[in-house]
Amino acid sequence: MLGGVSDLIELRDRMRAFTDERDWAKFHDPKSLVLALVGEVGELAELFQWLPADQAVERVGTDPLRRRVGEELADVLAYLVRLADVLDIDLAEVARAKLADSALRFPAHDVRGEAPEKG
Amino acid sequence: MLGGVSDLIELRDRMRAFTDERDWAKFHDPKSLVLALVGEVGELAELFQWLPADQAVERVGTDPLRRRVGEELADVLAYLVRLADVLDIDLAEVARAKLADSALRFPAHDVRGEAPEKG
Amino acid sequence: MLGGVSDLIELRDRMRAFTDERDWAKFHDPKSLVLALVGEVGELAELFQWLPADQAVERVGTDPLRRRVGEELADVLAYLVRLADVLDIDLAEVARAKLADSALRFPAHDVRGEAPEKG
Amino acid sequence: MLGGVSDLIELRDRMRAFTDERDWAKFHDPKSLVLALVGEVGELAELFQWLPADQAVERVGTDPLRRRVGEELADVLAYLVRLADVLDIDLAEVARAKLADSALRFPAHDVRGEAPEKG
Repeated sequence: MLGGVSDLIELRDRMRAFTDERDWAKFHDPKSLVLALVGEVGELAELFQWLPADQAVERVGTDPLRRRVGEELADVLAYLVRLADVLDIDLAEVARAKLADSALRFPAHDVRGEAPEKG
Repeated sequence: MLGGVSDLIELRDRMRAFTDERDWAKFHDPKSLVLALVGEVGELAELFQWLPADQAVERVGTDPLRRRVGEELADVLAYLVRLADVLDIDLAEVARAKLADSALRFPAHDVRGEAPEKG
Repeated sequence: MLGGVSDLIELRDRMRAFTDERDWAKFHDPKSLVLALVGEVGELAELFQWLPADQAVERVGTDPLRRRVGEELADVLAYLVRLADVLDIDLAEVARAKLADSALRFPAHDVRGEAPEKG
Repeated sequence: MLGGVSDLIELRDRMRAFTDERDWAKFHDPKSLVLALVGEVGELAELFQWLPADQAVERVGTDPLRRRVGEELADVLAYLVRLADVLDIDLAEVARAKLADSALRFPAHDVRGEAPEKG
């Protein structure tokens, strides 16, 4: 990051301090952190599961649902940042590299308006 | 970010441009994005599932596994950032708020060295 | 199963034999199996993520998508059955008990037509 | 199933009745059910996340954890069965077919003792 402090690095450092202050690093092996990430993604999914697809943005636009979704998004990010940290992977760097790679793999003129096939 | 640059905002803006250039915004309702996030978390889990828990950090320390884990971490972050964007939620802000809240809920002297109960 | 045959027990036994023939039991600790289950759920999610919510049943009604969804449902079930087996939990029994419990927790006349709150 | 009633069919029928009695079928489009499945898998993951990998079987061997894991396994199975039902897919049939296919794809003598590569 030119001329500033990365908020992902700031969050990584805060998570690291939070973990060390509680002596929780011993629980943070990668497989355990992936399971914790899955747990938070599951809580996020539960907030959306019964919402009509075309009303989800509106429903999440007001509290208390907006606050709860924000908390779950935060929890997912926190464990993702923590997992990258224990693996010594620069999350911002890999995110930029992957986005550049995706731009090459999905040329706008080829895929315009079409959902990319998965699996 | 006081006096800094947000790489989460940069990533949000890049994802937004990437999506608009491909006319993919129409696919990005929240429930679809949560499913896409789940798909990427699943790919991340598959890279770790059969690794011995105590060797995961070492195994992911070298390519090709290191590169592939980085790509999956990037994909999870990309969809998380995109989901927050369509919900107009500031990911960095909710992450800071949640971490402050967790510090209050889990006082270091109370939980030191003990895994927090879930569910 | 009163007077019946359990296909969950049949599947458990087939999975057990499949695993033993390949000497894969050593990989099947519970956390690894939960990660494998997550991986398969992620593949299932990827098949649905970009489908319009109101067209999903129709789109999955024909091959090749129908076949692929069937395969992912099968993979999720296989790991779920395998996880229950290594934990020595009778999946059919806990499923019946949980459904009976849910019937008490959600009386039809109280919740009729309303999505149950989660989290 | 020869000479008996399939417990997966029994569970499907009980889930169908449970849903209809509550007029919840309108919430059970496939994408919503996949999200519900993800939510339950997340709750399952949370019960395992901080357990030492080599102590998970023992820790889950006694209540209250054993009971809670059983409930989450049941919830995952219930939504999986419900999802297959709304898609008119025979879960026992696809499970048998997939296992037969896996036996061909992973010949015991070729993969014995080696974790299969994913992704």
